Amino acid sequence: MSKNDEKINFKPPSGFDIEFLPAEKRLEQFLIDTMRRVFEQYGFTPIETPAVERLEVLQAKGNQGDNIIYSINPIVAEDGDKDSDRRGLKFDQTVPLAAYIARHLNDLTFPFARYQMDMVFRGERAKKGRYRQFRQCDIDVVGRGKLSLLYDAQIPAIIAQIFDDIKIGKFLIRINNRKVLTGFFQAIAITPDQIRTCLKVVDMLDKIGEAKVKLELEKQGISATQAQEIIGFTQIKGDTDSILDQLAQTSQALGNPTDFEQGISELKTVIAGVIALGVAADKFCIDLAIARGLEYYTGTVYETTLIGYESLGSICSGGRYEELVGMFVGEKMPGVGISIGLTRLLRQLMDAKVLKPLAPSPAQVMVLNLQPELIDTYLQVSQTLRQAGINVFTGFESRPIGKQFQLADKLGIPLCVIIGEAEIANKTCGLKNLQTGTQIAIALDDLVTELLAEIAIKH
Amino acid sequence: MSKNDEKINFKPPSGFDIEFLPAEKRLEQFLIDTMRRVFEQYGFTPIETPAVERLEVLQAKGNQGDNIIYSINPIVAEDGDKDSDRRGLKFDQTVPLAAYIARHLNDLTFPFARYQMDMVFRGERAKKGRYRQFRQCDIDVVGRGKLSLLYDAQIPAIIAQIFDDIKIGKFLIRINNRKVLTGFFQAIAITPDQIRTCLKVVDMLDKIGEAKVKLELEKQGISATQAQEIIGFTQIKGDTDSILDQLAQTSQALGNPTDFEQGISELKTVIAGVIALGVAADKFCIDLAIARGLEYYTGTVYETTLIGYESLGSICSGGRYEELVGMFVGEKMPGVGISIGLTRLLRQLMDAKVLKPLAPSPAQVMVLNLQPELIDTYLQVSQTLRQAGINVFTGFESRPIGKQFQLADKLGIPLCVIIGEAEIANKTCGLKNLQTGTQIAIALDDLVTELLAEIAIKH
Repeated sequence: MSKNDEKINFKPPSGFDIEFLPAEKRLEQFLIDTMRRVFEQYGFTPIETPAVERLEVLQAKGNQGDNIIYSINPIVAEDGDKDSDRRGLKFDQTVPLAAYIARHLNDLTFPFARYQMDMVFRGERAKKGRYRQFRQCDIDVVGRGKLSLLYDAQIPAIIAQIFDDIKIGKFLIRINNRKVLTGFFQAIAITPDQIRTCLKVVDMLDKIGEAKVKLELEKQGISATQAQEIIGFTQIKGDTDSILDQLAQTSQALGNPTDFEQGISELKTVIAGVIALGVAADKFCIDLAIARGLEYYTGTVYETTLIGYESLGSICSGGRYEELVGMFVGEKMPGVGISIGLTRLLRQLMDAKVLKPLAPSPAQVMVLNLQPELIDTYLQVSQTLRQAGINVFTGFESRPIGKQFQLADKLGIPLCVIIGEAEIANKTCGLKNLQTGTQIAIALDDLVTELLAEIAIKH
Repeated sequence: MSKNDEKINFKPPSGFDIEFLPAEKRLEQFLIDTMRRVFEQYGFTPIETPAVERLEVLQAKGNQGDNIIYSINPIVAEDGDKDSDRRGLKFDQTVPLAAYIARHLNDLTFPFARYQMDMVFRGERAKKGRYRQFRQCDIDVVGRGKLSLLYDAQIPAIIAQIFDDIKIGKFLIRINNRKVLTGFFQAIAITPDQIRTCLKVVDMLDKIGEAKVKLELEKQGISATQAQEIIGFTQIKGDTDSILDQLAQTSQALGNPTDFEQGISELKTVIAGVIALGVAADKFCIDLAIARGLEYYTGTVYETTLIGYESLGSICSGGRYEELVGMFVGEKMPGVGISIGLTRLLRQLMDAKVLKPLAPSPAQVMVLNLQPELIDTYLQVSQTLRQAGINVFTGFESRPIGKQFQLADKLGIPLCVIIGEAEIANKTCGLKNLQTGTQIAIALDDLVTELLAEIAIKH
């Protein structure tokens, strides 16, 4: 059927093999719906920004994006397309959020709590598990000038609710505060220009372990004693009360240095909020080893570990920042947010069998076509069920009943409605449950009630 | 705060100014949710394909896409990126559907009924109301070898349900069959190579009117008598029974030509199905002037007119095709589907005030912050409401109560919960309805029940 005789390579380009089978896509949709529901329960509102922004916008955060930005151009150049060579595909949701806020500053209400779950694009070297397009789910609350720390406290409650609702298994939200780390570093005489390096090296603790982190710190000019103090500090363990106590003692021992005290105070406020919001104690902790690699975090930072699947790394991370989303309006706009790289995470969770694809079809019932002359009845019964909120696939092709059951089974449709001439005559129908193999005869008038009950049982 | 001192132009590039304000985006989300619900009620399953495909895939349908395809390339070229210059952004959902089917042929079940609602990209000249990126919502059912005409009959039922549910006002789904037109053209001795031209010219009837269509047909070498016959044919009016009768008479007068008879028979089957599915008679009609410009339609075709807003053109169109989605597997895969260009349609419907944006925030209740020392109570009450399924925005910044009401009002949150020391003491709270201006005092234990009732009233 192809117009060319040569065989066309219909595979996605390298790094763009992101599409899901229907059963997998329905699982992704369930995750997206769950996130949306929880985000909206906390008052976050949806936005979506174009995939394409000006290069000067994409590059505004510094050189971070240059290696990963795709430019777009018509394959047949168009006269007068002034934006050629000055456009690129967005590589995260943060720069576009900053642009969105600048574009609509007077139409937005602050604090502005938004979620965004569309696609981003990264021209990185393709390798297994790294995609060049993926769905990036972000929430952020942004204030003008100031933003209460209680927004930081809401974040773990939101993460916990989502992961509970999607039944992901046991997880642990690890909370820290950048000022606690940098305040401590200052207090033990780490020089200002070494602090950024220390954060980056500490961030690798999970991956490379204590011994290598110590070596790495020393390589960066940190003394062996300081490196040991840093390692010791990040390894402080205990429940939140105990860690906050140990921090208070450490601070006292160091002469209550201002920045360190500030970090401890913020952390305390956030943890108190998380507790007041009712997040179970086994779902979050203070982890002084959490640093986050990204430069822009200034306060609270989060990572989330899936227990038993630590090798996946953090499945949901984020933090508080001061100078990011106000960049285009030249205003101080503190924010706090988190990010989930959904495409990759979902593929990993399915590969690890943590989550299973749903049924390929959303239909809950199939109305079989046994006698083509009864098609009007099949259509009318199907509509009655749909009006009751039931998803119905009507069989149209005339096939043997066994083939029709097979089709329902392949589509993952659990229930089949069977109507032939005999059933029409006495106003009944057969209802077959493909999972139990049982078939019952019921009055046609009772079909909706019976199906709603069957579907409710399955949920 | 920008790293550069020069002012950055943060506007979207030309043609990409597609983003909605939160209140508008929430309306779009409502439309998407409504479509999804209806699509799934008919057993359509979601898929999503990458934004990027190989150029050979995008160009497989002929040269149609060449003027509108964007290629993508990293702004910093990467060694070994073999796909450079061979990738482009998808410009519709049909070619990607064909590629998806080829990629997953053995994992899909046929008839394959899918919906898809993601973004497509077109490098067309930018002008008002034409976007270079937009959300394209498509459904298609695809068979292997054959596909029942009853799938064609389901389409108007789906369109009607969606437009009813989004309360778009009065609309008319206009149904025709390409074979009726081409069969009639053949029968009046239009030559095979003129038939395609005739379809394209007839498709312009709505836009340019009878007189110009007649002139245009004559310009294409159609005789004045034939042109008059064509115009006369497309103007046959009446209810579906009457038009089908007139078609039967016309056919008889022409000696019952095979192709024409085939078209009439298909149209009759489809209309009978639409009626059996319970679509109200004032919501659909046979319109013999509907031709659809696209070449690939071979049978049923649809357009939808919003009554009173005819200048918007068809708001939902589609049809039956034979040779489109099987092109990469070299199989006959007949399909039938429709398409809604949502981004443009929604902007038009809002501009025409047919649809109004929702509230900017999804929160239904705001819990005010009157005394910062009561914050634990505010957090706990907020969580109790969320557990009951209510969307809650908790006020964190300490502001005068008037300012907090203002904030709720700007966010479109209709209800405020007011708790101070007095309320804590007697276990009550104030509940203010910002729309009616009334405030009542109720027991804290009754808050969930009262709010659920208030919210139910509003729906």
